[in-house]
Amino acid sequence: MIDLALLLKPGLAGGDAGTLRRRLSDALKSAVLDGTLEAGSVLPASRVLARELRCGRNTVLHAYEELAAEGYVLADRQGTVVSHLPSATRKASTAPSTPVLPPLSKRSTPHRPVPDGNAENQAPFMPGEPALDEFPLARWQRRMVQAWKAVDPTTLGGNPSPGEPVLRAAIAAYLRASRGVHCDAEQVVITSGTSESLGLCAHLLAERGERVWMEHPGYPGARAAFIDAGLSLVPVPVDAQGIAPPDALWKRSPPKLVYATPSHQYPLGVVMSLARRLSLIENARAAGAWVLEDDYDSEFCRGVPLAAMQGLAPDAPVVYMGTFSKTLFPALRLGFMVLPHAVLPQVLPALGRRLVLGRPVEQEALAAFIHEGDYTSHLRRMRALYAQREQALRESLERHWPLPPMLSPGHGGMHLALALPSALPDRTVAEAAWQAGLAPRALSNYSVAGAEPLNGLVLGYGRLAADQADRRVRELSSVVKATARRLQLALD
Amino acid sequence: MIDLALLLKPGLAGGDAGTLRRRLSDALKSAVLDGTLEAGSVLPASRVLARELRCGRNTVLHAYEELAAEGYVLADRQGTVVSHLPSATRKASTAPSTPVLPPLSKRSTPHRPVPDGNAENQAPFMPGEPALDEFPLARWQRRMVQAWKAVDPTTLGGNPSPGEPVLRAAIAAYLRASRGVHCDAEQVVITSGTSESLGLCAHLLAERGERVWMEHPGYPGARAAFIDAGLSLVPVPVDAQGIAPPDALWKRSPPKLVYATPSHQYPLGVVMSLARRLSLIENARAAGAWVLEDDYDSEFCRGVPLAAMQGLAPDAPVVYMGTFSKTLFPALRLGFMVLPHAVLPQVLPALGRRLVLGRPVEQEALAAFIHEGDYTSHLRRMRALYAQREQALRESLERHWPLPPMLSPGHGGMHLALALPSALPDRTVAEAAWQAGLAPRALSNYSVAGAEPLNGLVLGYGRLAADQADRRVRELSSVVKATARRLQLALD
Repeated sequence: MIDLALLLKPGLAGGDAGTLRRRLSDALKSAVLDGTLEAGSVLPASRVLARELRCGRNTVLHAYEELAAEGYVLADRQGTVVSHLPSATRKASTAPSTPVLPPLSKRSTPHRPVPDGNAENQAPFMPGEPALDEFPLARWQRRMVQAWKAVDPTTLGGNPSPGEPVLRAAIAAYLRASRGVHCDAEQVVITSGTSESLGLCAHLLAERGERVWMEHPGYPGARAAFIDAGLSLVPVPVDAQGIAPPDALWKRSPPKLVYATPSHQYPLGVVMSLARRLSLIENARAAGAWVLEDDYDSEFCRGVPLAAMQGLAPDAPVVYMGTFSKTLFPALRLGFMVLPHAVLPQVLPALGRRLVLGRPVEQEALAAFIHEGDYTSHLRRMRALYAQREQALRESLERHWPLPPMLSPGHGGMHLALALPSALPDRTVAEAAWQAGLAPRALSNYSVAGAEPLNGLVLGYGRLAADQADRRVRELSSVVKATARRLQLALD
Repeated sequence: MIDLALLLKPGLAGGDAGTLRRRLSDALKSAVLDGTLEAGSVLPASRVLARELRCGRNTVLHAYEELAAEGYVLADRQGTVVSHLPSATRKASTAPSTPVLPPLSKRSTPHRPVPDGNAENQAPFMPGEPALDEFPLARWQRRMVQAWKAVDPTTLGGNPSPGEPVLRAAIAAYLRASRGVHCDAEQVVITSGTSESLGLCAHLLAERGERVWMEHPGYPGARAAFIDAGLSLVPVPVDAQGIAPPDALWKRSPPKLVYATPSHQYPLGVVMSLARRLSLIENARAAGAWVLEDDYDSEFCRGVPLAAMQGLAPDAPVVYMGTFSKTLFPALRLGFMVLPHAVLPQVLPALGRRLVLGRPVEQEALAAFIHEGDYTSHLRRMRALYAQREQALRESLERHWPLPPMLSPGHGGMHLALALPSALPDRTVAEAAWQAGLAPRALSNYSVAGAEPLNGLVLGYGRLAADQADRRVRELSSVVKATARRLQLALD
């Protein structure tokens, strides 16, 4: 018989009866698990232990019952006997104090250390971040509050499969009027953003191991989605007319999917020419390939935006996709894709359980926001604002940049790309910039494996107020100069 | 020179100048794209066309400018000349009228036709669906409205990386008090649900091609997440004590990951014994494997719920995960996982951009809901409600089921599993039930490839009011009898 009272007392002081019972059974369980109470040993009778612990007998009885119910002890004729249990814990307690856990996977290793993604998103020059302080928050709050007040319980089960009909209709109407997309509400599938849209397309349209042509340089999120889906990535160069696949590539490595950002190539900013669009459709059709048209920020293109590829040819093999992360705000997590009518009967059931659903309330609120005209008037304001910010940034670069500001062609959107001389590696510059609190991205981060990385910086100006451009460009220029000095490089 | 006015007039009738310009340029673009206006042909002078169309010359000039800006025409000394463009559209217009699009992938083919996922979710017996009409909607609405009113613009950028600190703290406190999980807020990572948790674990902890042990039968969502992550699935049988890997399997096919639902095996309902839990931890540790402990509905287990495996041994190689889809509502799309302290320095940066973020407002609201005690009082009510519903269903099965009701062991939760004789294939029964408006799931849908499917039905009772159980069981019994007759099978 063990002197259980002595063993347990240190952990049991104070508290009322309810919590005493809890602590008693926890203390007993720990003692069993760590081997203090050996398998086969007999616990004292409940009456005895209660007296020693100066508690009610029921407290002990309840604790013993719980231990028996969970398998820590067996109640037999002998009394309450500690079970024979595998030694998972006992081994650990005699093991060295640094726990030995299996290693993480190699594929989880990030491309580069992300010290603090949150701080980075706030930092000047981070691409892809819209001007949140210009968002008509009060109006949006009103829509959300209205939508939440109108919810009925069945809504809580999640959305109907490709999204709320009212939002699909609002998006279709917007795309027809503003983007030259030929579609009706039925063709619109709501997703949680472009990553999900791309992942779904990769699964629906390609087998594991099939080829996807990626713009090089191109959107890292697309690259990640295709790698996750097990596709084989083929880098395709981008020229002044957009994605520029050499003729031989169509023969040598025909794609199953072609990923493209025709309105405003990401990250170079080039607008794909009409001729290039038409020939891409024609060649894709001949190759039996799908074009994934990512129209991520066409809303902010300057001048007359070219109509979407999707609407250029009847029944083009094109899936058009867009997102509200940039036009509204990232935390909304809503995007969409437009599928050709002909594939809907097969695609909709296949989407079935793959599509991440839920969040009907946001979808209702967004539909109202679009329908009432709040969306287009916000876009109009932001287009003017980003144009002003881009101009301020370009002028500041002209004034202060310590190198010839080799900007990529194209304009509009929320970012621009800037070439660096090869002797000044972009990752080195980007890391030094991060130390100075700035978050330009290295252009080489947008590379596709198998192609020569481009060396440069991608500068976001969505959050960069025009009157801050000079200051931030001077700071970034200092970083470049200091880096050049460190590398013993003359800048002119 | 072409008679453009004649060509265009049918599409131009009516409307004001602004829309006339829009329609004029659309009509011209279509005519270029479909070959009606041949490459190299010269458009009439703007003055001439304006006169013929009876519109202002500016309308025509603007349309021509837009066409030139977008590459449809070239303005040279000859006048406005139609561009030479690839023939993407022209080919299509002479092609047969059924459009030829590339086929969908084979991997997109659903396991079974899902005629209408939404109707199915509403239908009686659908597993995994909580009693939404019992959800304290008014309280939740209040929290959401409060949270939306308190939002400031920076929030719209999305959550800080592993989730809102206030929610992580609330979850950690809840898990310590109610589930025996040893953790603090730092270890808690907020996700959009168990699918995302599993996908992240698969990527972080295993290389493509490594083995994951899956309970057989087991959760189809887990199976899908592991297949997506490129893992190799090994089916492991389940017995009355939970997942039951034969000793030889540890040697022959050691896992990198083990997926398990110890509190309430999904779908069989078995509770994993303490001895089995400890030996699983011990064996996993020896094999260098991780255990993924999916605690999806422990909140509704009857009696004393066993503490989570995660808390049984110090530094067990266990990732604990849970979801609010069942305890609150599916459209919330929030779940979480608890990672060992030792791996946080590596995991948090790696999670970085993989983790789908956003939705800080819901997270704030949920934190308040937990913190103010609404969560535990809702759980208490639902535990009693589901217990009552389970009992009603079991009694109805005793009364009306045309076969011996061979129920799997275990109880609690929101579903139970029922074996069928092998001559009565479960998918045939489930399809016939669906025709009758009922949605039990075939147990064979929970199989893992490579193992003999179990034949039976999984019946959800989350939404089945006690006073409806008799009626629904009689309906399902009729389906079973009719199916047996059709298969010329005697039921006794």
